[in-house]
Amino acid sequence: MRISELSRRTGVSIPTIKFYLREELLPPGSPKARNQAEYGERHLRRIWLIRTFTTVGGLDLSSVRKLIQVIEDESLPLAAVYRILDRTMARPPLEPPCPDSVTQARDQVDRLMEQLGWRLLDDSGGATTLVQVLAALRTLGCESDLAFLLPYARAAAALADAELDLLATDDGEPDRGAAVVRGVLLDVASAALRRMAHEQQVLVRLPDAAG
Amino acid sequence: MRISELSRRTGVSIPTIKFYLREELLPPGSPKARNQAEYGERHLRRIWLIRTFTTVGGLDLSSVRKLIQVIEDESLPLAAVYRILDRTMARPPLEPPCPDSVTQARDQVDRLMEQLGWRLLDDSGGATTLVQVLAALRTLGCESDLAFLLPYARAAAALADAELDLLATDDGEPDRGAAVVRGVLLDVASAALRRMAHEQQVLVRLPDAAG
Repeated sequence: MRISELSRRTGVSIPTIKFYLREELLPPGSPKARNQAEYGERHLRRIWLIRTFTTVGGLDLSSVRKLIQVIEDESLPLAAVYRILDRTMARPPLEPPCPDSVTQARDQVDRLMEQLGWRLLDDSGGATTLVQVLAALRTLGCESDLAFLLPYARAAAALADAELDLLATDDGEPDRGAAVVRGVLLDVASAALRRMAHEQQVLVRLPDAAG
Repeated sequence: MRISELSRRTGVSIPTIKFYLREELLPPGSPKARNQAEYGERHLRRIWLIRTFTTVGGLDLSSVRKLIQVIEDESLPLAAVYRILDRTMARPPLEPPCPDSVTQARDQVDRLMEQLGWRLLDDSGGATTLVQVLAALRTLGCESDLAFLLPYARAAAALADAELDLLATDDGEPDRGAAVVRGVLLDVASAALRRMAHEQQVLVRLPDAAG
């Protein structure tokens, strides 16, 4: 198909598609006539992927580029794919407002991980963020016992396990593209489920919330 | 304390504090001498709150303003506080790349909610986002049975329930400020736990990920 059809089928403007081509987010089409190129299903899917990551996934283009490189580099072992995915998805840690609470928060996270039997890498983006959240709760006088986080953390582990199960394919060769897509979108899905669960519990406990 | 001490103790610059005052995110200090005002613990805590919401919480200033209004408006019933909180925290829905998959995705979400016994309001931000995620998974050829989301959703409901339990205070008067702070920060905490759980399962199942 020509670029105009690619644009029509994806709803993405021709200038944006040309931008993706220039930025090498999208592979070039096959040259056809002068100033024309032919695009295929592969281009269609790639544009959907870019749009999904930037809209539903909320990622910036430099993260999208990193994830596309990961999908394309077939020499990368799956473990490395996931390591890069986890680093890309962990939002860059920002300093919490009150550094005094950080030491206690770090102890809390260490205890929580011990209770869960988890051992993460030192540079875990998730753990860094959790420390910041707990430090902020403490600074604002809202700290509490963290036991109520344990069942949720265990369910999150079961979810991640189910996600990794989905990798198994008939020919034993994991689909790296699908692994990255699911990694990104299940983050958004779990945030959405947390929101839905919150809305649900508020409606159950404070019935006039429906008004 | 003077504005300079407020700045020193919060690590927020004087121009930024003046901006918060002009924007009425921060209540004025008590007038003292000409061009001077006295600030107290209340201002200190408010600045921490604003910084927490914009850094750790990742909110923009217009969302922060909305949440501060909710905390300050004591005529608002708690149910309304939570309703506004849930709407503010649900990221504005963006069109998924391929609208064709949306109808099937909506059916999937309806079935999931039926299995969970959840009844949400029609404008649920969480449900809208989940529909978009599922539509995107389908467009990208990564759709699957959603049964693996059920235990996670139930754990999210238990977490929200525990969060609402924390509201109970000795004098029976719920702390609206704490309710909003926890609502915002437990979103970030649950996303962090999802990341940690993902990192953990990858390390367990693909041990060379630690390399």
